[in-house]
Amino acid sequence: MGEFDLIAKYFNRRPEQGIGDDCAVFTPTAGMQLCISSDMLVEGRHFFPDVNPEALGHKALAVNLSDLAACGAAPRAFTLALALPEVNEAWLDGFSRGLFALADVHGCTLVGGDTTKGPLNICITVFGEVPTGKALLRNGAKVGDDMYVSGTDVDHVGQARLALEIMRGNVKANAAELESVRHRLERPTPRVNLGVALRGVATSCIDISDGLLGDLGHILKASNVGASVQTDWIKGRTDFALAGGDDYELLFTAPPSQRDALQAISDKACIRVTRIGAIEAPHEWRLLDAAGLPLENTFTSFDHFTST
Amino acid sequence: MGEFDLIAKYFNRRPEQGIGDDCAVFTPTAGMQLCISSDMLVEGRHFFPDVNPEALGHKALAVNLSDLAACGAAPRAFTLALALPEVNEAWLDGFSRGLFALADVHGCTLVGGDTTKGPLNICITVFGEVPTGKALLRNGAKVGDDMYVSGTDVDHVGQARLALEIMRGNVKANAAELESVRHRLERPTPRVNLGVALRGVATSCIDISDGLLGDLGHILKASNVGASVQTDWIKGRTDFALAGGDDYELLFTAPPSQRDALQAISDKACIRVTRIGAIEAPHEWRLLDAAGLPLENTFTSFDHFTST
Repeated sequence: MGEFDLIAKYFNRRPEQGIGDDCAVFTPTAGMQLCISSDMLVEGRHFFPDVNPEALGHKALAVNLSDLAACGAAPRAFTLALALPEVNEAWLDGFSRGLFALADVHGCTLVGGDTTKGPLNICITVFGEVPTGKALLRNGAKVGDDMYVSGTDVDHVGQARLALEIMRGNVKANAAELESVRHRLERPTPRVNLGVALRGVATSCIDISDGLLGDLGHILKASNVGASVQTDWIKGRTDFALAGGDDYELLFTAPPSQRDALQAISDKACIRVTRIGAIEAPHEWRLLDAAGLPLENTFTSFDHFTST
Repeated sequence: MGEFDLIAKYFNRRPEQGIGDDCAVFTPTAGMQLCISSDMLVEGRHFFPDVNPEALGHKALAVNLSDLAACGAAPRAFTLALALPEVNEAWLDGFSRGLFALADVHGCTLVGGDTTKGPLNICITVFGEVPTGKALLRNGAKVGDDMYVSGTDVDHVGQARLALEIMRGNVKANAAELESVRHRLERPTPRVNLGVALRGVATSCIDISDGLLGDLGHILKASNVGASVQTDWIKGRTDFALAGGDDYELLFTAPPSQRDALQAISDKACIRVTRIGAIEAPHEWRLLDAAGLPLENTFTSFDHFTST
C-alpha cells in the first residue's frame, strides 16, 4: 500500500476545502483567536511498543485536546503527521478508529498531514478557538486566588503514573488493580468542556502533563507568585499525585468570589474540581499537611531529557 | 540540558501571546483564510544522517513554506516538533540558525512546538494567510489553460534528484559538479513571493515535491482534465526533470490571456516561469518532443512507501 492509498483508506475524513491540496484551507470564526498546540509521541518514550493502537490513537489526540482545554479553547481541527516503520493495516485500522472516535466527540476535524516511513512517530497539531482576549494563560494567577485541580474521586491525579510503574514492574499490583488505573495512562479524558467553561472565571490554567508541582511551577513563574499546596486531598501515593505526570487534568486558579460559579461549572461539565491550595506572595510552592503544617518538598517535575 | 532549557536556548524566539503556555494564541487577520500544512522529515528517508544541520533547518521549513507558496498563502507562523536522539548542542545551534534564517526572510514566527527524545524526526506545521476564497488549489485547471513551471536556467527542475543520485553513488560526478546542484537538494528556495503573486492569475497550482508528472497528476485528477507536456525545455536528464522529486518549484496553470501578467509577475518576483504545456480534455498526460510529437511516458512519481 502506497502513501496516497494509505491516506485515502485510513485518514480520508476531511471535508474542508483545500484538503488533498498542498495546504488545508481553514476559515477562522470572526472575533475568535486561534489556539495552537503541537505534541510529538515517540515509541518507547511516550508509549509502550505493544500498546493497543486504538488507545494510542485516542491518546495522541487527547494530549493535544488537553492543551486546548488548558487554554479554554474549543477544538476545531487538527493535522496528523505519522512516521510508520511499515504499513500494518491492523495497526492503522485501530489507530485511526481511536483517533476519530475522540475527534468526533469534540467535533475536531482532520484537515491535513503527512505520512512517511520511519521509526514510529506521531505528531499532531491541534487548532481551537477562543473569543479574542479570553484564552486562559499561565500568567494571570493573583495572590489570594484559590487553586483547583480537576479529577473525580475514582479517576484522580497520580493514577497514570501508578499504571506506568505497575507496567514497568516497579509497583506490584494484580491484574484487576492495573486494569482500574490503566485507562488513566492510555486513554486520558481531555477536560475540554471544563476548560471552555472556565473562560472568564479562572485567572490561570495549565494541564498536568508533567506532574502537578512541575506544572504549578510554570504558573507561579509566569504569574510571579507563590502557592501553598495542601496534601490532604490526595488519594494514593503522594509522589505520584504531585509529580507523576501524564494526568491531563486541569490545574487552575480563581478568586474566592468564584467558588459558587465554579461549583456550577463543575456540575454542568460533570467533572469534579477540588480546591487544593492558594496563591501567595512570590516564593516557590510550599506543601501543607492535613493540619496545615509545612511538609518538605522532595518532588520534581518530569523532563523528557533527564527523566527515566 | 533539559527539555525546557533546550527550548529556551535554541528556540525561544516567540513573541506572540500565549507562548510558553499550553497553546500559542494566534490572531487571524480579518478577511483572511488560514492555509495549514504539516511535513515530517525522517533521517535516512528525507535527509542523510551527516547532512549539515544548518541546511537541514533551512530545508525543514522550506518544504512547508513551499506548500504555502503553492496555495498563494503568505507565511505567518509555524510550530516545530523535534525528536532528538541526544542533546547535541553543535547540531542544535546549526539547525536553529538555518531554520530561523529562512523564517526571518519570510516573517514567519515560531509560535510553539514540542521536543522529546527519540530517533531524529522533524515535524513542522506552518500557517499562512490568503484572502478568503483566493487560495490556489489543484482543482481549477481548465481546458485551454497554459501550464508553467518555475525555476531558472541555472537552478531548474531535476537538479535535486541529480544531486541525490550523485550522493548515492548512482551518478558519477566530480566535486564541483556535485557542488553546483547540491544546494537544490539541501537548500531549496520556496517560491513564496511567486505563489502570492499568482493569486487571481493561476487557475491551479502545486509544488513539485514528488516529481513533476506525479504532481501534475494531482492537478489533472482534481480538475478532471488532461495535459500535454512539452519536453524541449528540459535541461539535464529527462527522468530527473519529470519524475525526480524534491524540486519545490511551482507547477501551475493559467489562461493564455494571462501571459503578459505572468511575465510581469515573473519579473517582479525575480523568478523565471517557463510555459511547458497545455491543459487538454480529460485523459492523463502525454509528453511531446521538440517537434510536438508524442513520446512514450515511462516515468512515475515518488511515493514514500514504495520508492527506494
